[in-house]
Amino acid sequence: MRTRIGIIGAGPAGLFLAHLLHRAGIESVIVETRSRAAVESTIRAGMLEDWVVRLLRAMGLADRLDREAHFHDGVSLQVGAVRQHLDLAGLTGGKQVTIYAQHEVLKDLIAARLADGGEIRFEAHVTALDGIEGDSPAIHFTEAGDARRLDCDFIVAADGFHGPGRDAIPDAARREYQKVYPFGWLGILCHAPRSWPELVYARHEDGFALLTTRSDAIQRLYIQCEPADPIEAWPDARIWDALHRRLATPGWSLTEGAIFQKGIIPLRSFVCETMRHGRLFLAGDAAHIVPPTGAKGLNLAVADVRVLARAFERFYAYDDAAGFDTYAATALGRIWKGERFSWWMTTMLHRDPSETDFEHRIHAADLAYVMGSTAAQAALAENYLGLPFTD
Amino acid sequence: MRTRIGIIGAGPAGLFLAHLLHRAGIESVIVETRSRAAVESTIRAGMLEDWVVRLLRAMGLADRLDREAHFHDGVSLQVGAVRQHLDLAGLTGGKQVTIYAQHEVLKDLIAARLADGGEIRFEAHVTALDGIEGDSPAIHFTEAGDARRLDCDFIVAADGFHGPGRDAIPDAARREYQKVYPFGWLGILCHAPRSWPELVYARHEDGFALLTTRSDAIQRLYIQCEPADPIEAWPDARIWDALHRRLATPGWSLTEGAIFQKGIIPLRSFVCETMRHGRLFLAGDAAHIVPPTGAKGLNLAVADVRVLARAFERFYAYDDAAGFDTYAATALGRIWKGERFSWWMTTMLHRDPSETDFEHRIHAADLAYVMGSTAAQAALAENYLGLPFTD
Repeated sequence: MRTRIGIIGAGPAGLFLAHLLHRAGIESVIVETRSRAAVESTIRAGMLEDWVVRLLRAMGLADRLDREAHFHDGVSLQVGAVRQHLDLAGLTGGKQVTIYAQHEVLKDLIAARLADGGEIRFEAHVTALDGIEGDSPAIHFTEAGDARRLDCDFIVAADGFHGPGRDAIPDAARREYQKVYPFGWLGILCHAPRSWPELVYARHEDGFALLTTRSDAIQRLYIQCEPADPIEAWPDARIWDALHRRLATPGWSLTEGAIFQKGIIPLRSFVCETMRHGRLFLAGDAAHIVPPTGAKGLNLAVADVRVLARAFERFYAYDDAAGFDTYAATALGRIWKGERFSWWMTTMLHRDPSETDFEHRIHAADLAYVMGSTAAQAALAENYLGLPFTD
Repeated sequence: MRTRIGIIGAGPAGLFLAHLLHRAGIESVIVETRSRAAVESTIRAGMLEDWVVRLLRAMGLADRLDREAHFHDGVSLQVGAVRQHLDLAGLTGGKQVTIYAQHEVLKDLIAARLADGGEIRFEAHVTALDGIEGDSPAIHFTEAGDARRLDCDFIVAADGFHGPGRDAIPDAARREYQKVYPFGWLGILCHAPRSWPELVYARHEDGFALLTTRSDAIQRLYIQCEPADPIEAWPDARIWDALHRRLATPGWSLTEGAIFQKGIIPLRSFVCETMRHGRLFLAGDAAHIVPPTGAKGLNLAVADVRVLARAFERFYAYDDAAGFDTYAATALGRIWKGERFSWWMTTMLHRDPSETDFEHRIHAADLAYVMGSTAAQAALAENYLGLPFTD
């Protein structure tokens, strides 16, 4: 098999890239280890930055989103029992918070890609990347036990934090940065009506809580927990008890419902600044991870391939490889700002068992300042809904 | 001797308080361990928040300030060789940066206090505080070897971080928070013309540098150094070399001059939340220290006594002691925001030898974000020139 751009991973980075390349007339093939059903049902993030929604509309891929997504004008911050609305739309000239689950985006992108005649090879397990330092790289993979080889001009590893793509770059060439937080998130999905019209981010002495929504009938809620907790340590009653305590405000109460999915994730910040090695490029979670507090994961992944697609267009249209040399630096400007925002939201809103009493007070003061300052809220708003592009 | 309010310390907190009390017809006496000459020549901060300048004007104490201070519309931030003007006046509806050295403020306050018939006992060394948990506290001190006693209704310890006031509160009753930074500031005064029309805060891989001014002929400059460095480790040539490297920008160079004063200070954040114990009140540095990066020390001290003077007015005019009970909580709201801002400016602008590579990148991203975002600059500006009061 042969294509121009071999893409590993049918997540947001890989699928957006395939669509952007298609629009520019550049052929690609996606190799994805999971089944289509698994990709289309894995629960992840749910908040799209304003420009991502506009990009989907410009690509003609937003019909279902426009019908089914929830559009909010703001979010609520809460400290103790005080809940405060932040008017993000008013602070950003009308940008809205778009709630549309990541796997719903992926369903739309996969359906459209296949309808366009695009090739996505599901359940294709990458075994090796070959020749990335030369001119004719290849992806080796197996399908139903059969060994296959995809020859390409370039390989894009959009295969997530645990994928094989990043490991194909020699250790000595990789510059990486990481912070592992001493807490995790327990997330649930439940059958319940909405309790509050917008997202609520709560700082509480017991730990962080986040109220979000998926639909009129399904709610998504999170609580800070020990990252090593077994899920059995959190029977439903304990989860509801924690949610009620952390989200309580006078005259309001959270509506419970049957929990049908629950899981614990660790929180990590990670950046591999080496986003290009020869003819291999990293994009999305393969190159960087943020804690979910800032809702930046998917959005940063799409921002990467926005830069990368332009580099490929420039190469194929003008035989100009300059975009490859500047890809990492251009993408990293935005990535580090997203990392900063996600780290800041995380430290401000969580109870960190490793922080000093001084740091605890500073983070509380940070939130108190944001809740009292229009300027600070405007800064939060522009980060939350997507910083302007400078490239 | 007897007075209503016994004030320990003729620094900004003590002197502003004495003036505010005098304006309300409440008698006070200041007991100060140093000589008047020492108080009036100790080099400290030099930036006044907008409301402090307006307060001085309202008190009729700003004539010399209005003639001699420097008023800037902004400050510059610098990273590497890129220097950028922040239009603080434009971002805050016209507030200016007022550069007027702390000891000049103190000279004006002392002269006016003495002209008003106020009593300031210089070279008076406090030996004990007495009866602060009862109704008739007293300050014991010595003057030229003679033991003296000042009986008062209330004692205000405005005697700085190392003064005896805070120690008079039993350890078990004191709630304290602290961070000691693993770096210090080397500050110099030199005879040189101004090199740049406004303050420059520079982040550099070698460490922080700050260019400020005192007059047309005297400049004040700082560089980050090891806090334990002996001053002998920094001969003038090494200081200039560091300043030139950290502040360099294309087409500009720092003008050197004869250094006539140099010293190294440690950087510390500290808050004693127990700002009242019986009839003893803490104000200013006695209760809280900030690293100088945010120029908040004097300004927070004046904010404390603004609250405290009102509590005394309420007590003497209406026999209402409620202001004493709320003093700490009211003052601490602003103090912690000042602590947050000072900590944030410090971590963003310094090279911290103890930070991880990830944290180093996050702080660089913080500064890059501020330099590119009007919203973030507006937040910096309102903190720098003084947050609005909420009480």
